[in-house]
Amino acid sequence: MSKRKPKALFFDVFGTLVDWRTSIAGHFQQALTPLGIEEDWLEMASQWRAEYQPSMEPIRRGERGFVRLDDLHLENLNAVLDRYNLNNVSQETRSQLALEWRRLKTWPEVDEAMLLLSKDFLLAPVSNGNTALMVNLARYCAFPWDAILGSEPAQNYKPNPIVYQTAADWLGLHPEDCMMVAAHNYDLTAAKQAGLQTGFFPRPTEYGPAQTKDCAATEQWDIVAEDLLDLAHQLARRV
Amino acid sequence: MSKRKPKALFFDVFGTLVDWRTSIAGHFQQALTPLGIEEDWLEMASQWRAEYQPSMEPIRRGERGFVRLDDLHLENLNAVLDRYNLNNVSQETRSQLALEWRRLKTWPEVDEAMLLLSKDFLLAPVSNGNTALMVNLARYCAFPWDAILGSEPAQNYKPNPIVYQTAADWLGLHPEDCMMVAAHNYDLTAAKQAGLQTGFFPRPTEYGPAQTKDCAATEQWDIVAEDLLDLAHQLARRV
Repeated sequence: MSKRKPKALFFDVFGTLVDWRTSIAGHFQQALTPLGIEEDWLEMASQWRAEYQPSMEPIRRGERGFVRLDDLHLENLNAVLDRYNLNNVSQETRSQLALEWRRLKTWPEVDEAMLLLSKDFLLAPVSNGNTALMVNLARYCAFPWDAILGSEPAQNYKPNPIVYQTAADWLGLHPEDCMMVAAHNYDLTAAKQAGLQTGFFPRPTEYGPAQTKDCAATEQWDIVAEDLLDLAHQLARRV
Repeated sequence: MSKRKPKALFFDVFGTLVDWRTSIAGHFQQALTPLGIEEDWLEMASQWRAEYQPSMEPIRRGERGFVRLDDLHLENLNAVLDRYNLNNVSQETRSQLALEWRRLKTWPEVDEAMLLLSKDFLLAPVSNGNTALMVNLARYCAFPWDAILGSEPAQNYKPNPIVYQTAADWLGLHPEDCMMVAAHNYDLTAAKQAGLQTGFFPRPTEYGPAQTKDCAATEQWDIVAEDLLDLAHQLARRV
C-alpha cells in the first residue's frame, strides 16, 4: 500500500464482476430445453468456457489475425455442441447463444462497490471481450464505465502486455497510475509486468464448488481484498 | 423519416454538444491574465480553433502518422501564441491550456436531451477528440456514453470514412443502424457516404454572432431539428 492512489481502475469482467457459469447455464436451459434437450447445463457452460483460453492462443502467438471474442464464442460453442452430438441446434440458435455473454449476472456486492468507485476513479473494463459485447453487458449490468478498453483497442488478447499498455495509453495515463482489478492471478502477473498496480479478490465459486485455482492471492498484489466492496474500502483509505 | 429507428447515436462533440468558443476564451483569460496579458480572448479562441482542421490534413492524407488531438492542440496553441508574440508563456501553462478542451460547457438543452436519448439508444461520441480527452470531457459534462469511439479507434480523422465505419463496426452494428448527429454539414455528408443515418441541428453562434456557415441544413438529412432536444423528440416518434 505504499504506491500512490491510482487514477483509473481497469477490470477483468468474466468471473471477476459477473458469474458467467450459472448465467450461461441458465441461457443454455432456456434455449435448449424447448428442443427436447436435457443436459447438465452447468457442466455444459464450463465446457464452453474451457475452450476460451485455447481459442485465443493462436491470436496471442500471432498465428491468426485478431478475431473478436463474439466470434470465438460461436466457434467454441460449435465445438461443444459437436462433442454433445447436438447437431440439431440451428445456426440461428447458436448465434443467439453466442451473444448471451452480453447477459450475465453480477456478483452480489458489485453494484454497490461500482457506485462508490465511480466517484473517485476512472473505470474501464480491460477484458478480452470485444467492445460490442462489453457495451451491451454494461447496459445489462449497469456498469458505469468511462470507456471500453481491452482486447479490441489493442487488437490482441490478455495476458499480452500490449492490452494493458494500450488501456493506460488511451486514457493518457502512466501504467503506474492504473490498477488492474481481477480475481485471476495470471491476469495480475501480466498487468504488473506491464507496469500497472494490481488489486485481487477471490471468486472461489466461479468454476463451481470444486474450484481450487485462484482461491487466494499467489503474489504480493498491491491490494488483496475479500471482494470488490472491500477493495473499494481499502482504496478509499489510501491518500 | 422512412428509415428504421437507429440502434446507436454517434455524436460530434465540439460545437454540436459543447460551446468551445466561450469556454476556451474563459480558460485563456484565467490562465493568461495573471501574466499581465490582455487580449480579445474570444478572438484568440477562434484563432486556436482555426488551426484545427488544417492540422489534421497531413494525417488524413497519410503524410503524417496518427497524432492525437491533445498533441495537435498543443502544437496549434504554440502557433497562435507565436502569432501574438506571447513567448513568455511557459511550457507548463501551454500544456495545461492544451488540456482545457476537457472542460467545455454544454449548450443549454444537452443534459435533458441526453438523459432522454440514453433510454432508447446506445450513445457514443464519434469525435476527432482522442479517448482521454473525451473521457475527461464526459466526466465534466456528465455525458452518459456507452463507449468512446471516433478518431483513436480508427487512427484517423473525420471526415475520413474509416472513422464512421469503425465506430459502427466496434458496436457490432450495420452503418444504417447508426445515426451521426452533428451541427456541421460536412460531417454528415461523410457519415452518409459511409452508410450512416444523419441528424442535423444548427448551432448558429458556435463561431460567434457573425457566423454564416452551418446555420441550416444543406442536404436532406434523415432528421433536421432545431436542437438536440427537438431531435430526441423526433426520434421518439419513429417506430
